[in-house]
Amino acid sequence: MASLLVRYPSALRAHVTLVCSRTMASKTPVGFIGLGNMGNPMAKNLLKHGYPVIAYDVFPNACKEFQDSGAQLMESPADVAERADRIITMLPSSPNAVEVYTGQSGILKKVKKGSLLIDSSTIDPAMSKELAKAAEKMGAVFMDAPVSGGVGAARAGNLTFMVGGVEQEFAAAKELLTCMGSNVVYCGEVGTGQAAKICNNMLLAITMIGTAEAMNLGIRFGLTQAVAKILNMSSGRCWSSDTYNPVPGVMEGVPSANNYQGGFGTTLMTKDLGLAQYSATDTKTPIPLGSLSHQIYRIMCAKGYAQKDFSSVFQFLREEENL
Amino acid sequence: MASLLVRYPSALRAHVTLVCSRTMASKTPVGFIGLGNMGNPMAKNLLKHGYPVIAYDVFPNACKEFQDSGAQLMESPADVAERADRIITMLPSSPNAVEVYTGQSGILKKVKKGSLLIDSSTIDPAMSKELAKAAEKMGAVFMDAPVSGGVGAARAGNLTFMVGGVEQEFAAAKELLTCMGSNVVYCGEVGTGQAAKICNNMLLAITMIGTAEAMNLGIRFGLTQAVAKILNMSSGRCWSSDTYNPVPGVMEGVPSANNYQGGFGTTLMTKDLGLAQYSATDTKTPIPLGSLSHQIYRIMCAKGYAQKDFSSVFQFLREEENL
Amino acid sequence: MASLLVRYPSALRAHVTLVCSRTMASKTPVGFIGLGNMGNPMAKNLLKHGYPVIAYDVFPNACKEFQDSGAQLMESPADVAERADRIITMLPSSPNAVEVYTGQSGILKKVKKGSLLIDSSTIDPAMSKELAKAAEKMGAVFMDAPVSGGVGAARAGNLTFMVGGVEQEFAAAKELLTCMGSNVVYCGEVGTGQAAKICNNMLLAITMIGTAEAMNLGIRFGLTQAVAKILNMSSGRCWSSDTYNPVPGVMEGVPSANNYQGGFGTTLMTKDLGLAQYSATDTKTPIPLGSLSHQIYRIMCAKGYAQKDFSSVFQFLREEENL
Amino acid sequence: MASLLVRYPSALRAHVTLVCSRTMASKTPVGFIGLGNMGNPMAKNLLKHGYPVIAYDVFPNACKEFQDSGAQLMESPADVAERADRIITMLPSSPNAVEVYTGQSGILKKVKKGSLLIDSSTIDPAMSKELAKAAEKMGAVFMDAPVSGGVGAARAGNLTFMVGGVEQEFAAAKELLTCMGSNVVYCGEVGTGQAAKICNNMLLAITMIGTAEAMNLGIRFGLTQAVAKILNMSSGRCWSSDTYNPVPGVMEGVPSANNYQGGFGTTLMTKDLGLAQYSATDTKTPIPLGSLSHQIYRIMCAKGYAQKDFSSVFQFLREEENL
Repeated sequence: MASLLVRYPSALRAHVTLVCSRTMASKTPVGFIGLGNMGNPMAKNLLKHGYPVIAYDVFPNACKEFQDSGAQLMESPADVAERADRIITMLPSSPNAVEVYTGQSGILKKVKKGSLLIDSSTIDPAMSKELAKAAEKMGAVFMDAPVSGGVGAARAGNLTFMVGGVEQEFAAAKELLTCMGSNVVYCGEVGTGQAAKICNNMLLAITMIGTAEAMNLGIRFGLTQAVAKILNMSSGRCWSSDTYNPVPGVMEGVPSANNYQGGFGTTLMTKDLGLAQYSATDTKTPIPLGSLSHQIYRIMCAKGYAQKDFSSVFQFLREEENL
Repeated sequence: MASLLVRYPSALRAHVTLVCSRTMASKTPVGFIGLGNMGNPMAKNLLKHGYPVIAYDVFPNACKEFQDSGAQLMESPADVAERADRIITMLPSSPNAVEVYTGQSGILKKVKKGSLLIDSSTIDPAMSKELAKAAEKMGAVFMDAPVSGGVGAARAGNLTFMVGGVEQEFAAAKELLTCMGSNVVYCGEVGTGQAAKICNNMLLAITMIGTAEAMNLGIRFGLTQAVAKILNMSSGRCWSSDTYNPVPGVMEGVPSANNYQGGFGTTLMTKDLGLAQYSATDTKTPIPLGSLSHQIYRIMCAKGYAQKDFSSVFQFLREEENL
Repeated sequence: MASLLVRYPSALRAHVTLVCSRTMASKTPVGFIGLGNMGNPMAKNLLKHGYPVIAYDVFPNACKEFQDSGAQLMESPADVAERADRIITMLPSSPNAVEVYTGQSGILKKVKKGSLLIDSSTIDPAMSKELAKAAEKMGAVFMDAPVSGGVGAARAGNLTFMVGGVEQEFAAAKELLTCMGSNVVYCGEVGTGQAAKICNNMLLAITMIGTAEAMNLGIRFGLTQAVAKILNMSSGRCWSSDTYNPVPGVMEGVPSANNYQGGFGTTLMTKDLGLAQYSATDTKTPIPLGSLSHQIYRIMCAKGYAQKDFSSVFQFLREEENL
Repeated sequence: MASLLVRYPSALRAHVTLVCSRTMASKTPVGFIGLGNMGNPMAKNLLKHGYPVIAYDVFPNACKEFQDSGAQLMESPADVAERADRIITMLPSSPNAVEVYTGQSGILKKVKKGSLLIDSSTIDPAMSKELAKAAEKMGAVFMDAPVSGGVGAARAGNLTFMVGGVEQEFAAAKELLTCMGSNVVYCGEVGTGQAAKICNNMLLAITMIGTAEAMNLGIRFGLTQAVAKILNMSSGRCWSSDTYNPVPGVMEGVPSANNYQGGFGTTLMTKDLGLAQYSATDTKTPIPLGSLSHQIYRIMCAKGYAQKDFSSVFQFLREEENL
């Protein structure tokens, strides 16, 4: 019962009671708000694992499509909060999260004390902390659990979740998240899940652009495919070069082998780099390569690469000059 | 006898004969020119493997120090070339290579037809191709085989060699290089060994700075060591984060655990990035992150980081502001 | 009476009346909130021009120092708003502005209808628009009028004000601002004053770093002072090279001639570049050189340059390597 | 006769004599090698000023076209050097200069002692110094005098020349150069003319991209043309914003007002930035913004901007995203 160590100064007694009641009745309905490209397959995986799902989406079409799957659709986030004491949200950005949690018909209007609120949107860590404070005022527990893996992993239930929040709640969150992901990592206090995702995606962008530059330079040297082989056995090795190589013909089953379709779009990477830039500016952290990577992806968005996988930066840099 | 396929239009017959004579008498003396921090331990490994070594260095001290090891010291590169038909050179930069090969008392003044010349210096690929042409005119074979791994790997015989040149000669080169390294890779025509090293080191610099930025941002978020763990299980993973992490306390046995002593110095990385920049400009290849990495390491050279391991970029970015 | 053209849909009648009463009694007291390095000399210039000043600062020392000048000190921004229907604020950052305008004892708690509120702080344009909306709800007019010129220009009454807000109010604002500045420019709707300052300062940072790089490169070429002369008669000419050259010995009366003391500090420039970065990210505008300039000044803050004039970037780049 | 102060240790007597004979017969034929876009109008301006011109170009068409102007065409640079003791060269790049000066039928094969050789090509300063040494060995004087101003200024005789070389020869060089330019500046020893041009053009590129970024950000803020007005009266002012603004509609008579036709092409600016990058790497000078500007123009070359004026960077950054 180590998980009964609770640090919340307020609502302590009620909290302890409700944690117990929450964890002992695990197949009770789970709320799911945000049924888009990612939320829809994620919620379906919850259903697959036997959890009744109480859902809501601001777009009627998204709701209708999901209703056929056997979930119960509500009229507002507040209505979802009335019926489920564990809720997962999967929203495009901060303003959506603010509206869904703290808006007129938001979750916090009717949330039950001791509820567990897991936000898997990718938003500013500072915003996650604000939402956590607001939730705590209403006696609920908020955790940030942004994902990594994309639509394919969402469907296959192979997402990686980076979780931030009160450590005691991690087990309860993990129970739900393992229905949707194969990797659920505790990162620290609330906001650190977002932070971890931002740091990872900034490094990913840097290594991807770096790989594209190194491969392109190698090709111009006449090295062709040999350069990938050499990089992958040397100190330049990285996921971008050995698992997701941006050069067509180097490996199968990655976007570069499929005209950069699918995968993780340039627009999404640009958004994440914008979050990294905000956070770095806020914390006075110098990120010269991260900043430049953000600018490069920003420029690519306006040059026809917005919907292509982010590894299309190789194509962006590769276009030959007409001499 | 597949290795007897020879493509040299000129000096064909003499070449074939001498290749045969070279490969059949493998413990004949090997020349070694350049007995500095890297050359000294490399040549010693040749001696360890039973090869008589005929050596030369422009600095008398370096020669003296090596003489005690049992090698025979000569008065000039030309003198070495008279006595050995396989020669390895390990020099600091292009001007040195030009002097040693084509200078008044250079190798090519007395080189025997069919000699195998292996240059393990890191120089401009275009320069390697010039030297190869000059060697071919004298009936000798030139290969570039720059190394990766640093002084530690040189001593332990664990270097990686990236080899460029006529493919038929690779076996002969490999015979010698495996005495000094654990990884000997054929890259393509002459110049591609240098090219491969340049590409690898440019990507290494980019991933190292990127890792330093991501780790620093994570720490400022309050993530501390968790961020390294998360990066290494996610798409941000790279050699710089999982094998040579720049943050003190994250792993043992790397320069960050030893106040950035040893390893691969900032000045050397800056030099390699300068070579990448030259090559990229020559071939009109855009390398935005590579260029910026070069500028960052260039600035660090003037800020007290010149002799520190290149992972000290973390320290450079990390210094806290006095508010 | 062209200025009587009013476009406010709400509070129209009251507004017209109060505009008249405001403009006809121009030597009525003017409120001044924020008596720091800039605010103190600015408010003194208002006094010099015969305006009674009702002042407030959160720091008692700042208040005391100003009291001797003949102003009347209040206990809160709200108290100032009770007694003056024209108020100027000069605050360090957005959170301060939010507190002073909308806090418990903020201006808007007691502001009189039709008051003119001029904010000369440098804050995010989006925040200025928010404050303007809040002011409008209380029937007051808010204009942003950030300054350029620094402490020296503040003392000499030579500041440049970039003003955003309702055009009809510009004349009233100008009447006050010309006591403190020699250049008062109308930029457009509210927020555009901040926008103009941000754009200018971003370009200033870029040209200053560029000038430092070009001068440094010229000096390393052996050009010494000739390069400044040539730049200033050629297409590279800019304010940073012809009026505020960062190289010691090139011109008198600028910080580079005085060990980079005084002037416009690196920390302040970094703050402005952070605002430019936020705005660019918000509006999806690519600013590659602006971003990199922000990163360079950010790094300088942690290297002992925080309090030096921003032209000290020349010194930062110039430090020679020990070879 | 102050110009008789000669510092050449070798060929002193002969040199003095020939300087006298050179300067006293100023309307003697002038050699001109390189009759391309720039060389053709430059040579025509010499003719206009009454100088007989002895010319050569590697392309027969260029020669034919020039013959009609009244010049005498030769078969090689060496032939030109036989007949003229003052020669101006205007070539595209270093390899051309090396060939024309030191090739088999190059100038130095037949140059007369004491000849004045003025190279107005834009090449690496180190190369200029090499050519000067080679010329000195043959008893001739070499000066670098690269130009600024473009084809329009070449036709109008309004070029700026940045001259490097022995100061005593400056007057003689100036006599010829003032036929083609309105600004002839002495920069220092040989190579400094190139150096000055490189520094100027690097700063020009930085200020042009910076201006494009600031104007674009201002426009996205809703500032439209006001931002140009404000920049030009503030500390962000530079030639790129007040004389050559990159935004269509801001000023007349510049490439942005003519769909970026004419002017100074992106490809040419990229070449100059490549020279700046080489020089900076050689001298270990950090040029972060200069490097990034080089990369930006390099990328633009491959995106359809190669032939457009370099101010088209505004258009490159401005393209709106499809949301």
